[in-house]
Amino acid sequence: MSFQSICYNILVSYTQAQSHRRVSKLFDTLLVILILVNIAAMMLETVPGIPAVWQYELHIIEITSVILFTIEYALRVYSSAEAPSHHDKPYMRPWQKRLDYIKSPMAIIDLMAILPFYLSMLVAFDLRILRVFRVLRILKIGRYSRSMQTLVTVIRNETHSLLAAISVLLLFTVIAATCIYYIEHETQPDVFSSIPASMWWAVVTLTTLGYGDAVPITPLGKLFGGLVTIMGICFYALPAGILSSSYTAQMQLKRDRFKDTVRKVLDDGALTDHDMQHIDRVRELLALDEEEARLIMRLLQHHHKGAK
Amino acid sequence: MSFQSICYNILVSYTQAQSHRRVSKLFDTLLVILILVNIAAMMLETVPGIPAVWQYELHIIEITSVILFTIEYALRVYSSAEAPSHHDKPYMRPWQKRLDYIKSPMAIIDLMAILPFYLSMLVAFDLRILRVFRVLRILKIGRYSRSMQTLVTVIRNETHSLLAAISVLLLFTVIAATCIYYIEHETQPDVFSSIPASMWWAVVTLTTLGYGDAVPITPLGKLFGGLVTIMGICFYALPAGILSSSYTAQMQLKRDRFKDTVRKVLDDGALTDHDMQHIDRVRELLALDEEEARLIMRLLQHHHKGAK
Amino acid sequence: MSFQSICYNILVSYTQAQSHRRVSKLFDTLLVILILVNIAAMMLETVPGIPAVWQYELHIIEITSVILFTIEYALRVYSSAEAPSHHDKPYMRPWQKRLDYIKSPMAIIDLMAILPFYLSMLVAFDLRILRVFRVLRILKIGRYSRSMQTLVTVIRNETHSLLAAISVLLLFTVIAATCIYYIEHETQPDVFSSIPASMWWAVVTLTTLGYGDAVPITPLGKLFGGLVTIMGICFYALPAGILSSSYTAQMQLKRDRFKDTVRKVLDDGALTDHDMQHIDRVRELLALDEEEARLIMRLLQHHHKGAK
Amino acid sequence: MSFQSICYNILVSYTQAQSHRRVSKLFDTLLVILILVNIAAMMLETVPGIPAVWQYELHIIEITSVILFTIEYALRVYSSAEAPSHHDKPYMRPWQKRLDYIKSPMAIIDLMAILPFYLSMLVAFDLRILRVFRVLRILKIGRYSRSMQTLVTVIRNETHSLLAAISVLLLFTVIAATCIYYIEHETQPDVFSSIPASMWWAVVTLTTLGYGDAVPITPLGKLFGGLVTIMGICFYALPAGILSSSYTAQMQLKRDRFKDTVRKVLDDGALTDHDMQHIDRVRELLALDEEEARLIMRLLQHHHKGAK
Repeated sequence: MSFQSICYNILVSYTQAQSHRRVSKLFDTLLVILILVNIAAMMLETVPGIPAVWQYELHIIEITSVILFTIEYALRVYSSAEAPSHHDKPYMRPWQKRLDYIKSPMAIIDLMAILPFYLSMLVAFDLRILRVFRVLRILKIGRYSRSMQTLVTVIRNETHSLLAAISVLLLFTVIAATCIYYIEHETQPDVFSSIPASMWWAVVTLTTLGYGDAVPITPLGKLFGGLVTIMGICFYALPAGILSSSYTAQMQLKRDRFKDTVRKVLDDGALTDHDMQHIDRVRELLALDEEEARLIMRLLQHHHKGAK
Repeated sequence: MSFQSICYNILVSYTQAQSHRRVSKLFDTLLVILILVNIAAMMLETVPGIPAVWQYELHIIEITSVILFTIEYALRVYSSAEAPSHHDKPYMRPWQKRLDYIKSPMAIIDLMAILPFYLSMLVAFDLRILRVFRVLRILKIGRYSRSMQTLVTVIRNETHSLLAAISVLLLFTVIAATCIYYIEHETQPDVFSSIPASMWWAVVTLTTLGYGDAVPITPLGKLFGGLVTIMGICFYALPAGILSSSYTAQMQLKRDRFKDTVRKVLDDGALTDHDMQHIDRVRELLALDEEEARLIMRLLQHHHKGAK
Repeated sequence: MSFQSICYNILVSYTQAQSHRRVSKLFDTLLVILILVNIAAMMLETVPGIPAVWQYELHIIEITSVILFTIEYALRVYSSAEAPSHHDKPYMRPWQKRLDYIKSPMAIIDLMAILPFYLSMLVAFDLRILRVFRVLRILKIGRYSRSMQTLVTVIRNETHSLLAAISVLLLFTVIAATCIYYIEHETQPDVFSSIPASMWWAVVTLTTLGYGDAVPITPLGKLFGGLVTIMGICFYALPAGILSSSYTAQMQLKRDRFKDTVRKVLDDGALTDHDMQHIDRVRELLALDEEEARLIMRLLQHHHKGAK
Repeated sequence: MSFQSICYNILVSYTQAQSHRRVSKLFDTLLVILILVNIAAMMLETVPGIPAVWQYELHIIEITSVILFTIEYALRVYSSAEAPSHHDKPYMRPWQKRLDYIKSPMAIIDLMAILPFYLSMLVAFDLRILRVFRVLRILKIGRYSRSMQTLVTVIRNETHSLLAAISVLLLFTVIAATCIYYIEHETQPDVFSSIPASMWWAVVTLTTLGYGDAVPITPLGKLFGGLVTIMGICFYALPAGILSSSYTAQMQLKRDRFKDTVRKVLDDGALTDHDMQHIDRVRELLALDEEEARLIMRLLQHHHKGAK
C-alpha cells in the first residue's frame, strides 16, 4: 500500500479497514482539538490584559497550528489523487483530481485558514483584516460532524426557497422602513434620519429582535409598528416552515434507505452476525437513531414472517 | 409574427421559442436592475447631504425609470390581447382581454408605480404622500422570481387560517391590554395612559419583540406579563405551524406532479434526449431541486424495471 | 313553525332553509359590529380627555349593548330547547336542554358579558374589577368565525401536550431563576432581589422577549444567560412544533372527509347540479380552500374514469 | 404478597391491581404537592423580609421534606429488586437490580435532592452552592407526568440533531462575535471590549433576544448586525423544525400502535366490555386524545364491516 493511499484512507475515506479507521478517528479528534485551541487563543488575544502576559504562548500556538494546518492541507491535496473518478470523466489524471479537490469548498476553507498567515509575512499588509479571516478556521470543524453535514444538506437543498423567503423579508423591510421614515422622521430626526437608517428599525422589528434603540413614539408610528410586527410573524415563520418541511423530508428519505437495506438482507435468508454488522454500519452512516432503527427492524422482521 | 405577438412572448409567456427566451430573460434582468437602481435612488434621496450634491443625477434616474416603466406598462397592456381566453368565456375581444389584464393585481401594482409621478405633475399635490407610493415599485420584482411566487401561493392559500390566527392574536392583545391597564395605570400613568396606549405593550410583548419602552414594574403586573408571554408563545406558534403545514403540502403536490410526468414518459418506452429535455423543463417550471428530481427519477426507473 | 324553532334556526343551526340562512347571517354580522363598537367604547373610555366630552354617548352605547346582549342571551337559552338530544340520553326535557346550554362554555361567556353590569347596579361593588370583565365580551366574536373554531379545536386537542410543554418551560424557568439569583444577587441586589423577582428575568429571557430591564452583567451571569437562551430556543420550539403537527393532522382529516364525500357522489353516477351544491356546502362547512377542493375533485374524477 | 412487592406496585408499576392503583395515584399526588411546597419555600426564603418572620416554618418544611424524600428514595431502591430482569441478563440478583436502579438518571436526581442536606450537616461546607442544588428537586416532578415523558423522549431521540443545530449556532456565534469586535471595538470599547465579550451580543442577537445593552452603532456594524439577524432566523428555525418533525413522527407512531391494538381486538370478533376497557387502557398509556381515539375506532370499525 503506497503512502498516498494510506494518507487518503486516514484523511478522507469512510470505507477503510478496521486498523486505519481507528487512526483516522484519532486524527480527526486531534484536529478538532487543535482547531478549538486555536480559536480559543484567537479570542483570548483580544481580552485586555491577556496579550501582555501570554503573548509568547499565544504566538507559539498560532505558529504551531498554521504549520500543522499546512501539512494537513498539503497531504489532503497530495492524497486526493486517490479519489474515485467522476461518472462522466472515467479517466482522470492525478493532477486533474488534485485540481478538482483544490477547487472544492472545503479545500478553499482550508486554504483560507492558512493563507492570511503567509500573506502577512510576505506583504506589509494591514493585519487586522487578516485576523478576521482566522475565525473561518472554525468552519473546518464542519468536516468532522455527520449531523452537521445533514443540516448543511438541508440548508443547501432549500437554498432557493430560503433565498426567496429572505427576499420577501427584504422587500417588506424596505417598504416598512420607507413608511416609518415618513411617519417618524419629523418627531425623531436623530433615530429615523433617513430611509437607510430606518431600515435598522425595520430589520430589528421584523425579526422580533427589538433592541429598543429605535422605537416609534407617535401614535401613528406605533399603530404602523404594531401592524408591521404582526405581519412580520408570518414572514418570520416562513423560513422555519421551509426548513422544518425539508428536514422532515430528509429524515423520511433516510428511513426509507435504511428500510431498503434491511429488506434486502431479510430477503437473502437467515440474519447472520455479518448481516447485523452491515445493517449497523448503514445505520451509522445515515446517522439514524439506534432505538428507531431497532423499531424499524422489528417491524420489518414481523412483516417478513407474516409474508412467509 | 406580429409585433403584438413578439411583445407577448418576450414579456409574459413561458412557452416561447429558444431565441425569444433569451431576449425575455435579458429583458427581465434589465428591469430588475432598473427597479433596484430606482429604489436605491429613492432611499439615498433621504440621506442628509446626498440630495444637495446628487440632486440632478437622482432626478435623471427618476424620470428615466418612470418613462421606461410607462413603456413597459403600455406594452404589457397592448400585448395582453394575445393572452389565452378564459375557460368560461371562449371568445373574448382584444379590449376585453386588455381590460381583464388592467384589473389584475400585478397590473395595478405597475400602474401605482408610475401614476404618482404623473399626478404630481398635473395637480399641485402634497409630494410626500406620493413618495411613499414610490416604494411599492419594489413589488414589481415579485413578477420575476418563481420561488417568490410559490411563497405568495402559500400565503394566499392559507389567507383564511392566517387571518383567523391574527384575529385570535388581536383578541388576546385587547384582553391583555385591558388587564395590564387596570394593573399598571396607577403606578405608571405615563406609559399605560389608556387601553389603546397599553395595546402597544401588548403587541410588543405577545410578538416577543420586547423593545423595553413599556415594561410592567408592579409584582402583579410582572406576574400577568409573564403569563401573557408564555401563552403568547402558543398563539405566536400558530401562524408558523399553519404556513409550515401548507408549505409541506405544496411541495408534496409539486413532487407528485413531477412523478406523474416522469411515469408517463417512462410508460412511453425508451428515454430519449427529447424526453429528458421535457422532464427538465417540467422540473424547472415546478422549481424543484435538481438533486431531488434526480433521486425521484432513479427511484421510478428502478420500480419501472421491477414491474417489467 | 313555532317562534322557538325560528329563533333556534336563526341563532344556532347551520342546516336551515335558504331564507332563514340570510337572516341568520345578517344577525351574526350585526352582533359582531355591536361587540366591536362596545369594545371600542370601552377602550376609548380610558383615553384621557374623551370621557369628559363623550360621557353621555359612551353610556348610551354601554346600556344599549347590555340590553341587546341580554335579549340575545335570553333567546339563546329559550330556543336551546330545540337542540337535538344527546346520544346517551335520547329523551331530554326542554328544561334539561336549557340547563345543558347554560352550562356550556359559550353561554357562560355570554352571561359574564352582561352579569357585571347588573351586579354593579344591585350591589355597591368596586366598579374597576367589573370593567375588566367587560373585555371578555370580545370572546363572543369567536362564535362567528369558523376558522377561529378550527384553531380552538387545534388548541383544545393538544391541551395536554401544550400544558406539558408549558410545565417543562416553567420547571426550567424556576431552575434558571434560582441559578441567576445566586450568580447575580450580590452584583445587582435591586434587579435580582429574590428568586421570585429573578423569575421575571428568566421568563423574559426564555421566551426571547428581552425587555432589557433585567440583564446579567457579571461574566458568569452572561455565560449562564447565554446557555439558558440557547437551551430556551429548544423549549420554545416545542409548542410551535406541537401545534404545527396537530394543525397538519387536523387539515389532513378535513381533506379526507371531503374526499369521502366526493367519492360517494361520484359512485352514485352522473354529477348533477344538486351534487355540486352538496359538495360545495360540505367544502364550506370544512372551511376548505376553494382551489384545493377543485384540485381534489379533478384528481378523484380522473381516478374514477381510470377505474371504469 | 411481600412488603417489597407492595412497595414496588405502589411506587413504580403501571400494571397493578385496581386497589393498588388508587393508592399509587394518591401517593403520586402527595409527593408532587410536597415537591411544590418545598420549592415554594426555597423561593420565599430569598424574598427580603420573609426569612426573618417565617424562619422556623421554612426550616420545618425543609427538614420534613428531606426526611420524606429520604424514605421515598430508600423504598424505591429497596423495592427495585422487584423490577423485571433485562433481556440480555435473564437472571439478576436483587442487589444487581438495586445497583442498576441507583445508576438510573431518575434515581440520581432523587439522590441529588437529598444529598446536599446531609453533606451540609457533615462537612463545614459553603451552603450557598448546596442551596442551588435544592432547586433540582423540581425535576422529580417529571416522573409523574406522562406528557412530559413524551417531550423528554422527543428531545432524547433528537439529541444528536439538536446538538448539531446548537453547534452550528455556536460556530456562527463565534464568527459573528469576531466580526462585530473588529467593526465596533474602536467606537464602543466598553461594550465590545473583547471577542468573548462580543459573544454576549452575538448570542443575544442570534436568538432574537435583543436586550439592548449591546447594540452596534456604526453604519457598518448595523449593516452586519442586520445580516446576522436575518441569517440567524434560519439557524434559529432549525431546532424548531427538528423538534416539530420528531414530534409528528412520535405522534404517528402512537396512532399506529393504537390502530394495531384496535385491529387485533376487532379481528377477535364481537366487541365486549372487556375489550373496550383494554382499548381505553392502551389509549391512556399512549396519552392519546379521547376524541381522536374515538375517530380512529369508528374508521376501523367501518373498514372492518366493509371487508366482511
